[in-house]
Amino acid sequence: MADWISFTTDYGLDDGFVAACAGVIAGIAPTVRIIHVTHLVPPQDVRRAATVLAQTVPYLPPAVHLAVVDPGVGTERRAVVIETGRGLLVGPDNGLLVPAAEALGGVRTAHQLTEPRYRLPTLSATFHGRDLFAPAAAHLATGVPPDALGPAIDPAGLIRLPTPTTVVAEGKLTTEVLSVDRFGNLQLAATAEVMPTGRVLIGDQEAVAGRTFADVPAGALVVYPDSAGQLAVAVNGGSAAALLGWSPGDVVVLRAIR
Amino acid sequence: MADWISFTTDYGLDDGFVAACAGVIAGIAPTVRIIHVTHLVPPQDVRRAATVLAQTVPYLPPAVHLAVVDPGVGTERRAVVIETGRGLLVGPDNGLLVPAAEALGGVRTAHQLTEPRYRLPTLSATFHGRDLFAPAAAHLATGVPPDALGPAIDPAGLIRLPTPTTVVAEGKLTTEVLSVDRFGNLQLAATAEVMPTGRVLIGDQEAVAGRTFADVPAGALVVYPDSAGQLAVAVNGGSAAALLGWSPGDVVVLRAIR
Amino acid sequence: MADWISFTTDYGLDDGFVAACAGVIAGIAPTVRIIHVTHLVPPQDVRRAATVLAQTVPYLPPAVHLAVVDPGVGTERRAVVIETGRGLLVGPDNGLLVPAAEALGGVRTAHQLTEPRYRLPTLSATFHGRDLFAPAAAHLATGVPPDALGPAIDPAGLIRLPTPTTVVAEGKLTTEVLSVDRFGNLQLAATAEVMPTGRVLIGDQEAVAGRTFADVPAGALVVYPDSAGQLAVAVNGGSAAALLGWSPGDVVVLRAIR
Repeated sequence: MADWISFTTDYGLDDGFVAACAGVIAGIAPTVRIIHVTHLVPPQDVRRAATVLAQTVPYLPPAVHLAVVDPGVGTERRAVVIETGRGLLVGPDNGLLVPAAEALGGVRTAHQLTEPRYRLPTLSATFHGRDLFAPAAAHLATGVPPDALGPAIDPAGLIRLPTPTTVVAEGKLTTEVLSVDRFGNLQLAATAEVMPTGRVLIGDQEAVAGRTFADVPAGALVVYPDSAGQLAVAVNGGSAAALLGWSPGDVVVLRAIR
Repeated sequence: MADWISFTTDYGLDDGFVAACAGVIAGIAPTVRIIHVTHLVPPQDVRRAATVLAQTVPYLPPAVHLAVVDPGVGTERRAVVIETGRGLLVGPDNGLLVPAAEALGGVRTAHQLTEPRYRLPTLSATFHGRDLFAPAAAHLATGVPPDALGPAIDPAGLIRLPTPTTVVAEGKLTTEVLSVDRFGNLQLAATAEVMPTGRVLIGDQEAVAGRTFADVPAGALVVYPDSAGQLAVAVNGGSAAALLGWSPGDVVVLRAIR
Repeated sequence: MADWISFTTDYGLDDGFVAACAGVIAGIAPTVRIIHVTHLVPPQDVRRAATVLAQTVPYLPPAVHLAVVDPGVGTERRAVVIETGRGLLVGPDNGLLVPAAEALGGVRTAHQLTEPRYRLPTLSATFHGRDLFAPAAAHLATGVPPDALGPAIDPAGLIRLPTPTTVVAEGKLTTEVLSVDRFGNLQLAATAEVMPTGRVLIGDQEAVAGRTFADVPAGALVVYPDSAGQLAVAVNGGSAAALLGWSPGDVVVLRAIR
């Protein structure tokens, strides 16, 4: 039983897709409440959704976390529910759910969603969020156990996204841009454990290691441990993404300035 | 009595307009819960809102469906509540509500919203969503019957949007783009009942009739029955709207390739 | 005790920031419901957020109003709770909350948020919405009194935004663009009390004083008292912001045409 369903998609907010899923949930689990994580994941960007979800779930109440970014909808890709120590995750088996599962204590069990009674009567080929995943999440929230939804699958066989490379060397950190937030702050794949000190060269720009934006003058670059525990780069009062021209996936090098 | 209000507007999400309406509803019907369909209908695009609403309501729980896209606010256009076999619809009488009413089993009764006691004390001339429609929806959700809100009107006199033309001929289908979703998928006015088979010429591009995106190679065009029962055109992993340059209202021709 | 928390930020909807705050609130005050005012305030635009919030709160139920637009996060700027005659306001002391407090009857008391027990155990330097403000709002909603969260501060010492200038002279009104809504309607700092009559020159364009958009022909300019009690300028069926090229903060002159 769960009081909450969290909901993450790339459906956007222009159409009725999110509402259709919310309506299906309301029909099955009328007292459950939904926390919308985001529906503005760039279309089919599984990595971005996985990153946002994994960094958000630690702050959500115990829930069924429903996430649908599903370029393979209607193909043989599996639909799954993953059980963790602190909540369930429902979505396609394409790497989307595993980082969040790890943030919730790791995968305990995984089951495929094959049982027709926990789907809508008609399954479209292109909108499994509405017809398959939302009903599964709602039934799970009402207390249906994961093993009622389909056969157990080996957690080791779940699809995982490749891990971004981070290389730490003397005075030099090579890592990758993991995500860019609304403010243009660049979150790196390196964690705050390899936080530099003093002055740092980022590409050909000088930055200062700090704790928050205002630790540097307006318009200057700061490297800081962000609120998700990652290393990040920001411009005080501006956009580091715009200044540096970087996007998720770009490899970046930080060099200590002596 | 309804536990749910669905809410559809062109108010956008940048201002406090949606929240003001939600606040008015909370004051009148504190236990009612809102499912937001979309607030990103292009400004004053009544047809787009009508399409989204009609395709979403079948998946929503029994509700008062509040919809406000209202270019004629403050004029003599009527404000109405429409009763269907499965829920009520509240909004301006400009064509917005009728397709959703039909999706809910058809118009049973219609009443004009004239009774001052079910409005806010002061009625602005430009924000009837907050001052007139939201209070009406909230009172209806608490169990006030539609005929308490104003005089009955003839359902045949409700404004209806023109029906888009679809012409089916041997090997040739002429129809209209009904809407474009976030992924650039083009939904056509023709329904899936006239789904072609095999290879199809769309404008000057070749497409294949399929069931889902992955039925064609990445970057290729697929014609498929969409999750709302309409004929639709997509690019696997891309945007059909961008590839074909089409917008809602454009007339399109699909030709069978032999 | 409050049943509702309203929530206003510049966090955007692309990331999980809003959901993380909602999750923290759910953990502390599980029965409280959230009305989202907007999360699309332009990054760090304190004035815009203050304007939207002040114009929305009169229509919200009694609530804890949580608002976070916080360019000074992690610096010495104070975090505060303001008590009004009709609800509490929680956020940074940077001018954001005071206009809303005035719309709710004025500041009665103000307290600084210093008590660690009403924060998350770890306070990040860059995400006080999640770690400090949301927990404070949630605890206040459960009935913790403001004075339990920290020392009283002098209401006169709260930071206030400069008041935009409005000068009324014979046949000439000089004022400022306060905000622009999604429809391109220009809301002015002058209130509807100085509403002109007849024909008006706005910059070099002619407008007509009216009550609603349809009081002028399609494409024409109308000056009207808007739904928040401000003087506003719109184009019937179009965008006054696009036509006139004006943005918030611009000084504008309206002249009577005789």
